[in-house]
Amino acid sequence: MKACGLIVEYNPFHNGHVYHLQQSQEHTQADVMVAVMSSSFLQRGEPAIMDKFHRARAALRSGVDIVLELPYVYAVQFADLFARGAVLTLSGLGVDDVCFGSEAGKIDPFIKGYQHYKQHQQTFQPQLQQSLKDGLSFPQASKKAYESIGLTTGEVDLSQPNNILGFSYVKAVEEINSHMKPRTIQRTKSGYHDEQIEHEIASATSIRREILSDRSITSNALKALPSATIEQLEAYQRKSVLWHDWEAYFPFLQLLVETRSIEEIRSIHGVIEGLEYRLKQTVHEAETFEHWMQLLKTKRYTWTRLQRVFVHLLTNTTGEDIEYYKNLKEAPYLRILGMTNKGREYIQQQKKQIDIPLVSNIQQLDDPLLNLEEKATDAYYAPLKPTIKKNLKKQELTGPILM
Amino acid sequence: MKACGLIVEYNPFHNGHVYHLQQSQEHTQADVMVAVMSSSFLQRGEPAIMDKFHRARAALRSGVDIVLELPYVYAVQFADLFARGAVLTLSGLGVDDVCFGSEAGKIDPFIKGYQHYKQHQQTFQPQLQQSLKDGLSFPQASKKAYESIGLTTGEVDLSQPNNILGFSYVKAVEEINSHMKPRTIQRTKSGYHDEQIEHEIASATSIRREILSDRSITSNALKALPSATIEQLEAYQRKSVLWHDWEAYFPFLQLLVETRSIEEIRSIHGVIEGLEYRLKQTVHEAETFEHWMQLLKTKRYTWTRLQRVFVHLLTNTTGEDIEYYKNLKEAPYLRILGMTNKGREYIQQQKKQIDIPLVSNIQQLDDPLLNLEEKATDAYYAPLKPTIKKNLKKQELTGPILM
Repeated sequence: MKACGLIVEYNPFHNGHVYHLQQSQEHTQADVMVAVMSSSFLQRGEPAIMDKFHRARAALRSGVDIVLELPYVYAVQFADLFARGAVLTLSGLGVDDVCFGSEAGKIDPFIKGYQHYKQHQQTFQPQLQQSLKDGLSFPQASKKAYESIGLTTGEVDLSQPNNILGFSYVKAVEEINSHMKPRTIQRTKSGYHDEQIEHEIASATSIRREILSDRSITSNALKALPSATIEQLEAYQRKSVLWHDWEAYFPFLQLLVETRSIEEIRSIHGVIEGLEYRLKQTVHEAETFEHWMQLLKTKRYTWTRLQRVFVHLLTNTTGEDIEYYKNLKEAPYLRILGMTNKGREYIQQQKKQIDIPLVSNIQQLDDPLLNLEEKATDAYYAPLKPTIKKNLKKQELTGPILM
Repeated sequence: MKACGLIVEYNPFHNGHVYHLQQSQEHTQADVMVAVMSSSFLQRGEPAIMDKFHRARAALRSGVDIVLELPYVYAVQFADLFARGAVLTLSGLGVDDVCFGSEAGKIDPFIKGYQHYKQHQQTFQPQLQQSLKDGLSFPQASKKAYESIGLTTGEVDLSQPNNILGFSYVKAVEEINSHMKPRTIQRTKSGYHDEQIEHEIASATSIRREILSDRSITSNALKALPSATIEQLEAYQRKSVLWHDWEAYFPFLQLLVETRSIEEIRSIHGVIEGLEYRLKQTVHEAETFEHWMQLLKTKRYTWTRLQRVFVHLLTNTTGEDIEYYKNLKEAPYLRILGMTNKGREYIQQQKKQIDIPLVSNIQQLDDPLLNLEEKATDAYYAPLKPTIKKNLKKQELTGPILM
């Protein structure tokens, strides 16, 4: 069986994902679709609206055959490290292709672009570092660095968001010498259908906001989300009583900033350039999470950067904890969150060639990465009633979801 | 004006306190009654049912003229350190007498007992340490050590709880060379009235339990509590929506134990002999705070010891933070929580001879002890709605309560 890997992390799984999935399957002629999915917290530093098990279920019901967990330490990171973790995971299972959407829509320019990038790394890296030092966000700094080596004017324009992300995947594939073949699907605004999809993706944030404030599935959500996702959102709410957003974590974050020393806050991953003082100075003024973000936000401390810091603060993850994972060439383990029957067959087929542990129970292996993952789960469930928390946590201790 | 100092820390201020206050005033012929009161958390390691400002108001309405704050680092400690902090505070204000209740009822045996204790410290100390090592609680170990030097058979029997506490006060007075004269009021079960009081004190815990679970003032509470206390309990509940008990802090404690490393937990004040592992092992099983305590409790880890650890964990107070305060000979500052007009006159009278800062606003002084106090306040208010928390916290930033 031939397998194609996808990288999904959105909150929640929507029609755009389903469309991308179908396009990818058509394009790669794969028998099996494998998704690697952010665990409890998303790339932009947000708690997922429902837990990873319910999101995995929604993905399986929408056409995915295997859902792998993207470990927390890779998920809540800027594009390059996020891509590294996702590619390591898919590659660990031995899937044939990794498929992503891009504005460019052709893979050759990405490959050529990578060669060019390799040759000009000595110009690229100092430029990137300088821009970050100047206070640009990672996406902005990357864009500027790509521009400095001429990668924004050729066949693949690395000033466009999906191209940049795709390029990170291609880089990761090359850097870990993966056997996987990168592939890309066009995502433009030219076709009617794509425009529709773009619109749906763009409005995902507003749909999320809407259902969070409404505490119910709104008519917009009904239009934008696959029925499997709606079903899981409702199932999760019945069990947990809440859909997760940052406001529910605000009292925890406040306590942590109030009671930890400046040195302790400084050690948290992502706390840079005096942010520890700014957190301390603003914590007593803030009345809500949103209010706190407004007080904290600057050009340098972007919304995304701050949110990621809050995730790491909540999970007590230090810069040191992350350092080791930046340059791994192999995933320490593979965590299967769920699979269909076809997915299970595929895993049977691959088993003999997989040389890293396959994990289902989070406590099955005493691996530091898995320990960090458990902290993320515990932190994620923190706002729930303790008995509900205990009950949902059980999902971490049983085998993968079978469908 | 002559002043008498009292040490109160109960939760909440009840008829027993009022009786003790009146007896003390009669006994010492003092013009001014000064109480030093535990701040946010009590000696046995419990959050006070209502905040210190409302408890101070109840004390002022019940006959106290000045309420001084017993700093958190002294309040949540075994008897000797608790006594040290209380005596340092009263002594700092220059009050004439310090008055406590005891089974003995006469002060001379305490003074003689102290001389004896000084002479036999070389027997006492190793015995105390050994008993603590053997897993006895501090009160049990103290009792045994006093027994070993013959202080349980003479005029003052140091196996009786109020005698032990009183002896700690006398020790502290002597050790810091205070000018204050220790005094004691008899607390026996012989007189009818005393029995009544004993009964009321003994049932304070059950009254607390009752009103916490009932979320209202029960008829038993109405009988046992002075009207000023009832008034303040109701006023606090109107503002805060809750009366504080450990259950409200359970999600915070869980998160802290789940996400902190073994080393970090071990550094917390009071975490000894592998308790860090026991906390980690039980945290996922517990469904309520009460349940957790049942899982944790042993002969060695008494209820009181565990509760104190939870306070220090919540406020992130390490053993190192406390070390410095163990042997102070002078309070770093005096915090006046509230006073009557007479109290204010007394402070005016004393001002010229007070050589330590008088603090009203918690942020007025950059003192490490005051910083720890602010952490305690922040941690105490953590379970409240953020806007309510912010509002109640304002009390820390204004002058003392005037009545």
